[in-house]
Amino acid sequence: MGLESSGYMGLVLKILTQAGIDVSDRIRIISNGKDYEGILIPRAQVGSDPDHIVVKLDTGYNVGVRIGVESHIELVKRGKKRKSERHSNLPKANPDLPTVAILSTGGTIASKVDYKTGAVNPALSAQDLYDTVPELNQHARVIPRILMSLLSENIQPADWSIIAKEVASEIRKGVDGIVIAHGTDTITYTSAALSFALQEMPVPVALVGSQRSSDRPSSDAAINLIGATDLVGRVDAAEVMVVMHGQTDDSFVHAHRGTRVRKSHTSRRDAFQSINFQPLFKVEGSQISEITQPLLRRNPERKLRLKPKFDDNVALLKTYPGIRGEFIDNFVECGIKGIVIEGTGLGHASEHIHLSIKNAIESGVVVAMTSQCISGRVDMNVYRPGVEMLQMGVIPCENMLAETAVVKLMWLLANNKSVEKVSTQMGECIVGEMDSRTEQREYDPH
Amino acid sequence: MGLESSGYMGLVLKILTQAGIDVSDRIRIISNGKDYEGILIPRAQVGSDPDHIVVKLDTGYNVGVRIGVESHIELVKRGKKRKSERHSNLPKANPDLPTVAILSTGGTIASKVDYKTGAVNPALSAQDLYDTVPELNQHARVIPRILMSLLSENIQPADWSIIAKEVASEIRKGVDGIVIAHGTDTITYTSAALSFALQEMPVPVALVGSQRSSDRPSSDAAINLIGATDLVGRVDAAEVMVVMHGQTDDSFVHAHRGTRVRKSHTSRRDAFQSINFQPLFKVEGSQISEITQPLLRRNPERKLRLKPKFDDNVALLKTYPGIRGEFIDNFVECGIKGIVIEGTGLGHASEHIHLSIKNAIESGVVVAMTSQCISGRVDMNVYRPGVEMLQMGVIPCENMLAETAVVKLMWLLANNKSVEKVSTQMGECIVGEMDSRTEQREYDPH
Repeated sequence: MGLESSGYMGLVLKILTQAGIDVSDRIRIISNGKDYEGILIPRAQVGSDPDHIVVKLDTGYNVGVRIGVESHIELVKRGKKRKSERHSNLPKANPDLPTVAILSTGGTIASKVDYKTGAVNPALSAQDLYDTVPELNQHARVIPRILMSLLSENIQPADWSIIAKEVASEIRKGVDGIVIAHGTDTITYTSAALSFALQEMPVPVALVGSQRSSDRPSSDAAINLIGATDLVGRVDAAEVMVVMHGQTDDSFVHAHRGTRVRKSHTSRRDAFQSINFQPLFKVEGSQISEITQPLLRRNPERKLRLKPKFDDNVALLKTYPGIRGEFIDNFVECGIKGIVIEGTGLGHASEHIHLSIKNAIESGVVVAMTSQCISGRVDMNVYRPGVEMLQMGVIPCENMLAETAVVKLMWLLANNKSVEKVSTQMGECIVGEMDSRTEQREYDPH
Repeated sequence: MGLESSGYMGLVLKILTQAGIDVSDRIRIISNGKDYEGILIPRAQVGSDPDHIVVKLDTGYNVGVRIGVESHIELVKRGKKRKSERHSNLPKANPDLPTVAILSTGGTIASKVDYKTGAVNPALSAQDLYDTVPELNQHARVIPRILMSLLSENIQPADWSIIAKEVASEIRKGVDGIVIAHGTDTITYTSAALSFALQEMPVPVALVGSQRSSDRPSSDAAINLIGATDLVGRVDAAEVMVVMHGQTDDSFVHAHRGTRVRKSHTSRRDAFQSINFQPLFKVEGSQISEITQPLLRRNPERKLRLKPKFDDNVALLKTYPGIRGEFIDNFVECGIKGIVIEGTGLGHASEHIHLSIKNAIESGVVVAMTSQCISGRVDMNVYRPGVEMLQMGVIPCENMLAETAVVKLMWLLANNKSVEKVSTQMGECIVGEMDSRTEQREYDPH
């Protein structure tokens, strides 16, 4: 890549050209009284703000610096491999490194800011990501591929099936690991879906997102992407994981089990948290530490079982004072086959909707109970109305996340013919998505 | 109160009688190799496990000790005021102490275990609470009263109106503070409701619950109730608060703003957390520390504005991949006037339901957006679909909790005739339930 295809234009392009600076060069910028030093990286090709230069600092961070006529820019050190890069967008990687497929589905990690509206659109390809984070080639021989270009709130259960099949296809080609770039909004729904759809995997899969679009100065795309690529290339585990910043600073990323993680903050970079569970791994620089034992270890001989179907006739119902049984009646009329209730406390729902729940179950709908508390465990044996709902056939989901329960129910309905079998499996652990009551009861008189 | 009305029976009653021990006496028990010393307190009158003695330890904790023929029980110190207590269930309080009304609505704090089914039913009266926690009289002259006896998942918006009117009635009688015993499942919905219904209060209101029923050994009822009573009697604030354990041990309670708190764990005693906000006060022993400045200070001259009506034609809709616009269409057909969406991330919803949202708004339904992330703030200007929803008229709820948004929308719909006014007020702060975007944007390319 050279300056001509770097996305820089106008005054900035002129200044860079005059200074003899190219992409990958180490440069120093003094602008607006501040002093920056780092590697010049390309901009997103279309619609980039023409007044900014993006530099990768030694901290690993990309910073956008506004350039004016008063700015001073100088070359510090010529970038390496410039000639070879001119001939290929893919930096040559060491053949001894693991092979990692990076599949892009869209989302902020693959987005750029539309400087006209200020909004962010999905646009960057896996190739663009790779151009922006060239040090990926120190960790793996990367095979980037675009599967779809969707903001994650628009990803549907049918898309989970597509992604699962594509991952299976990469696994069968013999890659050492797979990274999936995905919007953060629903990344945990997709990670849960892949956890059920891709069983007995030989190698790991990491979904990775970014809370800031990758062409913006403070993007966390780079550290998340590098952490995920490094992890799936060499970790001794074969689970579906979500790899995201562990803290607001840049020191490490966490790899969470795909069925146990939640986006718990709208914007912080450390928004992702394992719930009722510990992260599986911490990736800090070149160090991978195991926090929780994974379900499966890496084993290239293991034969993948692909079960990619989902039945999206499932409703999620969060209860609240004033909720009407009518809503449940309507679900049944719409052909809904499964309902996940996000009840209150230990798994309760107003007695005002009990009759509708009973009727739904009697007409063959599977009704499962989770808690809107999010942390903790459903226990419907403590209060009488809970006991009554158990008697009706409501399935308690133990300490499973409501979001995971929705995905699991969609998957069970697509893969089983009998309602009884779906109900039984809904309350049992299949891929580490829940665990049975711990031995130690929370009953400690001081 | 004497042994005859203490709830003890059978072998336990016989042993206590023979040892000349009465309720309120300090006793020592050696049972099962363990040694306990504390004050004998009464059991719940009906259905108590006949083999246990309940003792209040010096830590403030109630512990249940199983008694067998091999157990040793001895009197350590005669309890005080036994004679006067025989004549009145209410211990005499110092007339210089503040007057606090304790209103019971039911819930675990006012429940006892049904030892036949193991389930917990609402049963204890405010009087029973007071009998169980006699040291309340060191903090206030207590006026206990039962308003209703409901498990909190069954409390409806109509009940909020009743509670608000009863609180107003107590305030007008001139009490120094009000404590409301309430089930924990929906205590935060009720606290939000009272925050809107009771404006310009002269004195504070504290809702208090317990994660363990008050006749069970490890109940947290005592410390929560004492903390709440002490707080409303003397704190210089006049807000609606939720007072609950701050930690799993017994060291302190937190008073949370009624619109900013969430039950975040199904069973831990420190389940209650202020979200996007700090607690208002910490009560540790006799020490009350102010953490956040309250909206209003105590002022007995201030005139209460009571607005107790709620319109329960409001639906809460948590989005997920596969959600159908049909659900929204059905809400409109059911006569729903307001919908709170719990979208993903910064306040997004699948484009597959955008048309239904648009249609709902065009038919006069108020649609408000919150985030299922829970922490953080809705920002619909970042991505194009968010901008499109704003253009349709979806109201962004800033950093307001979804649960509070539901209550607020019910309250606004009951107190305004115009949809425009409801929409405008929905996005504005009324009683400290949200705040506008902070100055500091989370955009730090360090």
